Amino acid sequence: MVEIPDSHPRKRSLLSRQKIVEGSLRGLLADSAMIAHGRGEAFDYLLGERTTESAGSAIRETAARLMSANNPVISVNGNTVLLAGKGALRLAAVLGCAIEVNLYYRTPERVSGLLSTLEEQRKSVLDEAEPPGFEGGWQESVRGVTLLGGSPNFRIGGLEGPRSHCTEEGIGSADLILVPLEDGDRCEALVNLGKEVVVIDLNPLSRSSKMATVTIVDEVSRAFEGILSELINNPNRVPTEWDNRSALRDSLVEIAEFLDKS
Amino acid sequence: MVEIPDSHPRKRSLLSRQKIVEGSLRGLLADSAMIAHGRGEAFDYLLGERTTESAGSAIRETAARLMSANNPVISVNGNTVLLAGKGALRLAAVLGCAIEVNLYYRTPERVSGLLSTLEEQRKSVLDEAEPPGFEGGWQESVRGVTLLGGSPNFRIGGLEGPRSHCTEEGIGSADLILVPLEDGDRCEALVNLGKEVVVIDLNPLSRSSKMATVTIVDEVSRAFEGILSELINNPNRVPTEWDNRSALRDSLVEIAEFLDKS
Repeated sequence: MVEIPDSHPRKRSLLSRQKIVEGSLRGLLADSAMIAHGRGEAFDYLLGERTTESAGSAIRETAARLMSANNPVISVNGNTVLLAGKGALRLAAVLGCAIEVNLYYRTPERVSGLLSTLEEQRKSVLDEAEPPGFEGGWQESVRGVTLLGGSPNFRIGGLEGPRSHCTEEGIGSADLILVPLEDGDRCEALVNLGKEVVVIDLNPLSRSSKMATVTIVDEVSRAFEGILSELINNPNRVPTEWDNRSALRDSLVEIAEFLDKS
Repeated sequence: MVEIPDSHPRKRSLLSRQKIVEGSLRGLLADSAMIAHGRGEAFDYLLGERTTESAGSAIRETAARLMSANNPVISVNGNTVLLAGKGALRLAAVLGCAIEVNLYYRTPERVSGLLSTLEEQRKSVLDEAEPPGFEGGWQESVRGVTLLGGSPNFRIGGLEGPRSHCTEEGIGSADLILVPLEDGDRCEALVNLGKEVVVIDLNPLSRSSKMATVTIVDEVSRAFEGILSELINNPNRVPTEWDNRSALRDSLVEIAEFLDKS
C-alpha cells in the first residue's frame, strides 16, 4: 500500500480508492465495481467531499426511521464492505439488526469472501473503543450481529435471476432496508414490495436515488458515521413526512453552488 | 461481451465501459484506470453525454493549432487507446504526425500491449472508408503513422522517475502535444517546457484542465471525431487568443444548467 501523507487534503478519498483497488485484486468485487467507485469519487468531489446540509437532514431522517422500524436490515455489497464494513457493523450493533451480503452480480466465492472480510472487521471493531455515549454491552452487541447472505433461501419479487436472491431472515422479512450503492432495478423492486428503502448514493440523479424512500447523498462511510452518531445521541427522534424529491433537488443545488465557487 | 440493445439511450457509454473492463482484464491498464474511467463517466453524465458548445469551441481552436503546429504529437495512455485508438490513428493520418504511447505508471508489458492494440486498430481503420472530404492517399497516410513509445530515450524536464520517460522523436521534440486524460503534474511539466498542451478531460476542475493551453471538456472519442471533422472541413482556420480559464467556466455553467433541468 502506498503511503499517503497525513497532510494530503484528499487523504481519505485516496485511502478509499486503495481499499477498492486492493479488494478488486483480491477478487472481492465485480468487474465494474471500480468504475462505479470512480463515478462516486467524481460526485463526492462535486459535493466538496463533505456531508452537505441536505445529506445531514437525510441522515437524521434515516436514524429516526431505523429506530422506529420493526425489522431493519443493512444490505451490503462489495464496495460497501471494503469502504465501510466496520461502520455497518457498528450500526448493526447499536440497532441489534442483521447485515446481509447481497450482490447484484452474485457469485458464491465473492459472497463468502465478503462474509470473511466482515468477520475480520468485526474483530477490529471489538479491539476499538465503544462509540461515545453508547449504553449497554458493546462487545456483546458487536458479537451478536448476524451476518447473512451465504445461503439465500428467498427471492425479491419482481426481479429475475441471481440478482433476486436474498435471505428470508434478512431482506425477505425486513420492513426497512438500509442499502448503500444499490442498483436501480433492485431498489424499485424492494419499494414495490412495500418496504422502506434508504439508499446511500453519491449520485442524486441515479435511478436508485430517485426510487428510494429516503436517499442520503453522501459517501457511505461518512453517512454511516452520521447515522451512528444520531442513533446514540438522538434516539427519540421520530420520522417525518419526508419529501425525497425535494431533498434530492437540495443536493443538486449544493453541487451547483460548489461549481459556482470553483 | 454482453449485448446492449441499439435502443438503449446510454449505449455508447456502456460500450465504452465494456472496452475499459476488457482492457483491464487483458492487463492493458493500471489498477486505478477503471476508477478514472468511472470519474469520467460521472462528469460525462453531467454534460449530458454530448459535445457541449464550449467543448465545440475548444475543438475548433485545437484543430487550428494542430494545423499551424510545426511538430505536433498525440500522446496516448491505456484508456485513450481502448476508448479512441482508432480516432487517434485517423487524426494522426490527417496531420501526418506520430502517436506516442506514454504511461504515467509505465511498464514495458503495458506499453507493448498498447502498441500491439494500436497496430490491430490500424488494420481496422484501413478496412474502413476514408473520412468524407479527405484529399490525398488515405491508405498510405494511415500506414505512415509512426507509433512511438516502445523505446523511450528522452526525459520530460522537471519530472522524476518512470513518468518522465518519453521519446525524443515524439514528445521530446514536439511543439504541440494533444494528450487526452493526462496527469496534472505531467501536464504542468510539459507546459513549463514551453510546449502547447491540449488536454481532453471530462473534469473541468482537474489540475490538468486548469494547467493546459487548451482544454477540451469532452469524452475522448467524441472529441477526436470533432477535431477530425474540423481538420478536414475547415483546414484554414487560424488560432485565436484563447482564454482557457474562461472556457472552463463556460463548461461549469453548462453542467450547472444540466443540473438545473434535472
